[in-house]
Amino acid sequence: MDSFVVGIDIGGTGTKFGIVDNLGNVLSSDVMSTRGHEQIHTFIDELYEKLSVLIENVGGFGRIKGIGVGAPNGNVYTGTIEYAPNLPWKGIIPLAKLLQDKFKLPVKLTNDANAAAVGEMMYGAAKGMKDFILIALGTGVGSGIVANGQLIYGHDGMAGELGHTIIIPDGRLHPGTGKKGSLESYASATGVAKSAVEILNNTDRPSLMRNTPVEKIDSKVVFDAAIAGDEVAKEVFEFTGRILGISLANFVMFSSPEAIILFGGLTKAGDLILKPTREHMEANLIEVFQNKIKILVSHLKESDAAILGASALMWEN
Amino acid sequence: MDSFVVGIDIGGTGTKFGIVDNLGNVLSSDVMSTRGHEQIHTFIDELYEKLSVLIENVGGFGRIKGIGVGAPNGNVYTGTIEYAPNLPWKGIIPLAKLLQDKFKLPVKLTNDANAAAVGEMMYGAAKGMKDFILIALGTGVGSGIVANGQLIYGHDGMAGELGHTIIIPDGRLHPGTGKKGSLESYASATGVAKSAVEILNNTDRPSLMRNTPVEKIDSKVVFDAAIAGDEVAKEVFEFTGRILGISLANFVMFSSPEAIILFGGLTKAGDLILKPTREHMEANLIEVFQNKIKILVSHLKESDAAILGASALMWEN
Repeated sequence: MDSFVVGIDIGGTGTKFGIVDNLGNVLSSDVMSTRGHEQIHTFIDELYEKLSVLIENVGGFGRIKGIGVGAPNGNVYTGTIEYAPNLPWKGIIPLAKLLQDKFKLPVKLTNDANAAAVGEMMYGAAKGMKDFILIALGTGVGSGIVANGQLIYGHDGMAGELGHTIIIPDGRLHPGTGKKGSLESYASATGVAKSAVEILNNTDRPSLMRNTPVEKIDSKVVFDAAIAGDEVAKEVFEFTGRILGISLANFVMFSSPEAIILFGGLTKAGDLILKPTREHMEANLIEVFQNKIKILVSHLKESDAAILGASALMWEN
Repeated sequence: MDSFVVGIDIGGTGTKFGIVDNLGNVLSSDVMSTRGHEQIHTFIDELYEKLSVLIENVGGFGRIKGIGVGAPNGNVYTGTIEYAPNLPWKGIIPLAKLLQDKFKLPVKLTNDANAAAVGEMMYGAAKGMKDFILIALGTGVGSGIVANGQLIYGHDGMAGELGHTIIIPDGRLHPGTGKKGSLESYASATGVAKSAVEILNNTDRPSLMRNTPVEKIDSKVVFDAAIAGDEVAKEVFEFTGRILGISLANFVMFSSPEAIILFGGLTKAGDLILKPTREHMEANLIEVFQNKIKILVSHLKESDAAILGASALMWEN
């Protein structure tokens, strides 16, 4: 009788979960709010209730090999979520243990972007690769690094926080971390919106984005304006791509990956962001690395990728 | 009967080599000029001549298990030196094969800083560590990265070029690479001298360093002035430590090492550079990484470390 695994992807806003077979098919899935639960216990209670329905539909708990979880600041060594700035639960949360106690199933937890990297390696754009970096460009910037065919966890399980690397010393303040000039403060959906608002506030250049109240400007507004030919909006993506490109060059000179896999909402901007990213990456690489590192966009269905990545942790076990 | 290995460290100016036993003792060693040989073949001829003497003294070629070589831009996968800006030989040099043919011994070649990292892991400050980064602060800035107990080579053997990561976009030009704002252009002996000359040329601040003709100012002149209490010279080390500290924070957020091992001439400046480096590293790390990453200075004798590191490659085999 086939067995299945559960994949759970915990995000700052919502949590996605599903049942996955050993070929990487997401048989069923559901979502719930993360933000709505100030207490971890009520979060786990709702998760148990909703997941039980999916589990019963595939034949019950006996068919489930285990649960893989991806979460911001998830630590694979300790099974804890540690000081995640975007989650409602502060400090150190022993999530793997809490889930194990509730579900009576083995649980493996890691950083959400690490989970996505495993998903890409098993089912996606990084299939067959032993050295690659996944960069998740969403509300924030996450990353998962694979070298010699293994996830890089570091001595404490917390490696791969590339979104927090400093690319402009003394640059833009990141309100969540208090640090200045990190990649995430520019090359995230939040960062793109901020860059747009900065130009609009500091110049009187005409722009379609001026039709939107400043506090409503998000990356979608910038994207729509750019597509409509708005020069300011196009410049925002050019600027974002430059920052991202220099950062990618730095990551390449660290681990020399075969490819960098981009993932997440911002990649929908396509060549608006990819073209300057590629150009500035190449321009900042020393000769030995030039013209050989692929920049690929994940082709996994976004809602599935996170669940697949988390579930892959358990298959990997 | 005991066997030995040969360790060779090829630098831009000179080449060091020696005979090493399996406990990491350098039994004998010698040096020769690298710069004096425009042709790789005359370089190898002189190396063979000098090494043969050392080899005969320990009982002849039959006692030698193999040769480990560290060289700038050395590629472990191909055994070649690729486009090394600081060596007299341009393009791709099949060094491992040339040495194998000449010495009739197995040869393993890698990047000089990778070799030093292996040396630190086997005999030095990184003994017992599975995750650390070695940063060599010499004329340039080299690096070797160990994660999960293995050197990170990347998909092409060229990983670990941290000296070329960009820390100040559009910053100081690196004449060797043509790139702007790389770590090496600031945090190397060359970079320290440049920073001093910049302040002296752009201000009329008094400084002991003004007693030295500008073209003669090197990192030693800056160091001596700082030790004598010169404010400008101290500021140069403060500035250098700031750039290095931010860069180290970035490297930590990549691979979360247990320690960063500093190595090479600039570390002789001691707390002049280490204090600001530590401060700015901590100030730029997000919370989960703070106050847990050690910055250690290599305690291997410098002339031996390079030879030991190169030889360790062969023991590792």
